[in-house]
This record gives sequence, structure tokens and C-alpha cells, in this order.
Amino acid sequence: MTNEVIAAIDIGGTKIALGLSDLGGEPSLPFRRFPTDVARGPHRILEQALDELERMAGESGARVAAVGVGCGGPLSRRRGLILSPANLPGWDEFPIVELVRERLRVPVELDNDANAAALAEHEYGAGRGAASMVYMTISTGIGGGVILGGHLIHGVGDAAGEVGHMIVKPDGAPCGCGARGCLETICSGTSIARRAAERLSNGAQGSSLLDGGGSLKGITAKAVAEAARAGDRVASEVWDETIEYLALGVGNVIAAFAPEAVVLGGGVSTAGEQLLEPLRRRVNESVKIAPVDEIRIVQAALGGDSGVYGALILGRQAHAAQQSQGEASSSRA
Amino acid sequence: MTNEVIAAIDIGGTKIALGLSDLGGEPSLPFRRFPTDVARGPHRILEQALDELERMAGESGARVAAVGVGCGGPLSRRRGLILSPANLPGWDEFPIVELVRERLRVPVELDNDANAAALAEHEYGAGRGAASMVYMTISTGIGGGVILGGHLIHGVGDAAGEVGHMIVKPDGAPCGCGARGCLETICSGTSIARRAAERLSNGAQGSSLLDGGGSLKGITAKAVAEAARAGDRVASEVWDETIEYLALGVGNVIAAFAPEAVVLGGGVSTAGEQLLEPLRRRVNESVKIAPVDEIRIVQAALGGDSGVYGALILGRQAHAAQQSQGEASSSRA
Repeated sequence: MTNEVIAAIDIGGTKIALGLSDLGGEPSLPFRRFPTDVARGPHRILEQALDELERMAGESGARVAAVGVGCGGPLSRRRGLILSPANLPGWDEFPIVELVRERLRVPVELDNDANAAALAEHEYGAGRGAASMVYMTISTGIGGGVILGGHLIHGVGDAAGEVGHMIVKPDGAPCGCGARGCLETICSGTSIARRAAERLSNGAQGSSLLDGGGSLKGITAKAVAEAARAGDRVASEVWDETIEYLALGVGNVIAAFAPEAVVLGGGVSTAGEQLLEPLRRRVNESVKIAPVDEIRIVQAALGGDSGVYGALILGRQAHAAQQSQGEASSSRA
Repeated sequence: MTNEVIAAIDIGGTKIALGLSDLGGEPSLPFRRFPTDVARGPHRILEQALDELERMAGESGARVAAVGVGCGGPLSRRRGLILSPANLPGWDEFPIVELVRERLRVPVELDNDANAAALAEHEYGAGRGAASMVYMTISTGIGGGVILGGHLIHGVGDAAGEVGHMIVKPDGAPCGCGARGCLETICSGTSIARRAAERLSNGAQGSSLLDGGGSLKGITAKAVAEAARAGDRVASEVWDETIEYLALGVGNVIAAFAPEAVVLGGGVSTAGEQLLEPLRRRVNESVKIAPVDEIRIVQAALGGDSGVYGALILGRQAHAAQQSQGEASSSRA
């Protein structure tokens, strides 16, 4: 009997990452990546990914037994569709689950990238051992994934864990979601850069952020974090405000879930202790209803690999679901 | 073999309610109530409750197989203790679980009243059929209980579902929990009354709230709701502000859990559609991340009986846990 492996596809706007693991979850490292050549269209990109996965499996004499797919939202888990993610022009109502299932004749599970990363951090990363965990990715936007008792919660319309859209400033800036004052409108990487640019265009002086001829549009969250670390006043004000509102968001997450761990991922989280130390302090000061010192607030551990690890777990879940259906059928037979 | 029944004790500051159900959850109505004569102390009150429960069971020739206890927090589920609830002076570190277990030799489950009411509304009340439900009780304070997949989530320190302590106004009024600007500081019954009194003492004119010689301290949330319904300007402003912030809280609950139902209980919820209709409208306007029209936002159905119904469910859970332990032991044997 041929070995069986789980395959993972993590679809991003600039690259697609592929991985395999055994049925127990032990990954075959390294994962592989190729650029997402968006112009080729989703069908040819998917073909390429599946070709490569079958080749990878074949190299070790194994057969793909199930596939997990992670992708930026919006998507429909129920219908197995990718629905026009901002970073994937042309991927409109793309029936990825059906296409993978038809070609490989194996079970397929699809979820969004934040949920996949949450699964990954819980099993392989910073959330290991936590009975309950909330993952927040602070990147272009702010996404989230919630794991309770080892399982993701999805909620109506897969909207559970949308922690970036908790409203923290009722009359705040408009959000991409259509609401106002969402956490994302203040604390995402994009919003951190925007708030710094606003301060400068409103005449804030003495900042190094535009040194070397930089433009307001060229300011990044990373540059703001670095300038704040170097003592730049404008950048420090923006960074402090970021911490302030992020502490509100994390506090509300704690009031909702009281999870054993809050894991922060995404580009902004790579500031590490520059973000985490004051964040923990503010959460401790402002949250009184829960024993905050028993809640780990930590940086994600898997970086850019979290999507592949998460898709491997999705694939394993698809495989396990098929197995238990099989058992149920044979016990009925 | 004698019939077995589940017994429930719902401990409130003014009365204790008792109930029985069969092992399948069918309650024996009516429930019974007696006043909580706080001066007698917790031990004698508990004795009285257990005497009465045994008498009730005996009347139908049954034996109590498990007991569920609901009580106002704070309490420790893990240690089985009631910890000095505000409405029960003298109930300090009261080991109710151990005392009930020693006397009746049956399994006992303790939880706070909001969690008990959440279980009750989910099984017997307004949340029936919902795979996921958040219960919010808007009373002296604001408490909550979250049910996912049929089970309460408790979280670290039993702090999950503390929706009254989501911060909705960062520089708001101090809260009993020690934080500032919690939802409870604006939307609890106590806070609604306080905000109306503040407006009047700040010179707001032309309100009927003090008609008939009433004092600022005598204003109640119920009076504010009634005056708002009658068109009183000050009361209407307070009521509108209540809706505004409650919509923020419910919106954040939806961003966290995307539950199939949000059930509102407690005294303030008895305003019914005066509260719910504008609340649903504001939630629809302000929450864009989830399909709000697929989420029921409804009034609790069980009123003052929710605590007993919930304690019956706790008792049934204690019984089921013992049974499955028994099975595990006998399968090991």
C-alpha cells in the first residue's frame, strides 16, 4: 500500500506556498513556493500547484489523501468558493474545492488565511498547549481566528473572530468593511502609516519620517515603528496610539473569550516586544474582569509559514472527516 | 428502582427558587420559591433548600440524582465556592458544592446566574434551535453567557462572555470592575438611571421624571423607559444613548462570535420592542462584517424562571458527567 500524505496550498497575492505532511501532521520540510502570476488566471495557477504537489508526493512514493487550502477572504467555505480577494484580481467565485476534488478525488477543506494561521499557531506555533486561543493578524488589515477546544469557531457567515472589526472608536475613520471606527482603521499596518502621514500633512514638525526625500504615501508601519524606537516624536505618538487602541481590542477579545493565549501575527507584530511589552501593560491596567496575568499575549512563531501549516491542518481535518464518515457508513452496513 | 430526578437551586438576593426535572430535562412545574432570609446565614438557608428539595422529590416517589446550583458571581466553579456576591452578605467562600455533595451524595454543578440563564434560554427559551448563542442580561449590571455547540464557554478565570465589561467608551465612567467605560457603565439599569439623574442635576429642563415629587436617587431605568415612550425629551435622549452603546456592544459580540442568536434578558430587556427595534436597526447600520439579518436579536423568554431552568441543566450535566465517568471506569475494568 502506498503511503498517504496530506497536501497544503496557501494562496497569497504574490506567492503560492505548498506543503506535505504525513497523516499524523509531521510536515515534510522545506515547503515550496512559486510566484502567483496573477495574469495567468486562477485555473492555470491551480493546475500548476496541483502538478507540483503530485510531483512532491510522488518523489517520496506517496499519494495525496486530502488537501487543505488557505486563501485570503472573502470566500465561501460552504460553497467551496474563493470570492474576489483584493489581492487576487480575477479570482471571482472560483470553485477551488470542486476543482481540486475533481482532479485528485480526495476530500478538500478551504478556509481563510487568518483561520488557517490560527490553526497553525495553535498546533505548531506560539499557541501550543492552549485550550483556547485567539489569533490576530495585524497586517494590511486585521483578521482573526478563534480556537476553542482545539477547533475553529466560524459563526454565521464565517464572521466569528472578526476582531479587526470590533468598533473601538464610534465616530472613527471609515473602514473597508463599510462601518466606522473598526480596530482595523487605527491599528492595521495601513492605518498606522495613514495616521502618521495625516499628522505630518497636518503640519507636525521635526519628524524623521520624511528624511531622505520620502513622500507621505511612502510611509510604512515598519518605518513608523523604527522611527518610534529611535525616539521620533510624531512616530512615537502614532505608535502609542496604536498600543492604546490595540489594548482596547485585546481587552474586548478577553472579555469575550478569556482565552489562554492571544497570539499576534502579521507584519506589524514583527515589532516584537516594542509592541508586546506596552500592550501587555495597558491590557493589565485596563482589563479588570479577567485574570490577565494568566493569559499569554505573545507574538506568532511561524511567520510566513503559518498559512501552509494551517492548510496542512485543514487537509488533515478533511481526511479525518472522510474517515469518520467511512466508519459511520460501514457500521451502518 | 426509584425514579431519579434532577434538582435545581437558584440562589438570588431576595429569593431562592427550587425545581425538579426528570433525567431527560422535562421540568415538574411549578417551581417553588422562598425568601432568602440573609440574616439566617448561608448554612441554614442551604439546609432549608435541601430539605424542601428532598420533600419535593419524595412527593413523587423520586430520589435526587444530581443537583445544579446557580448563583450570582463572583464564584469559583473549580473550587465549588460562592465568593461574597454583592447581594448575599455573609456568603464568603461558601463551599456550597461540597456541602450539597456531602449531604445528598450526588454530583453537583455550580455556575453563575448569567451562565445558568444562558443555558436555560438556549434549551427552553428564546435561543432554542440556535447552534450558537450569546445571552446578555441587562440588569443592575450586565452579565453574559456564551453557548457554542450546545456548551457554555468559560475561559480563563470563568471570564468568557463578560460582555458587560467590553469597553465601549475609553474615557467613560468608572465601572464596578475597576476599569472605565465598560458597556455596563452606560447600559445597565443602574447606569441608565444614573445618566438620567446626571442630566437633570446638570439642569436639563422640562422632564417628567421628577413629577410627583420624585428624587434624583429614586429614578429607575423602568421610569426612564416609560418616560421615553411617552415622549419625555430627557428620558428619550438617555434611552437613545443606551441604544447607541448597546448596539456597539452587540456589534462587538457579533464580531467576536457571529452567533445565530443574541438573547437579551434582565430587567431592562422587558422594555421589549422599545429596546429591540431601534437596537436591531442600529446594529444593522453599524455592523458590516457579518450577515446581521441572519442573526436573531431577541428578548429572553423565561423571565425570572431562567435561573431554575438553567440550574436544572447544570444538574443534568453533572449527572451525565458522572454517568460517562462510570462507563469509562467499567470499560476499563
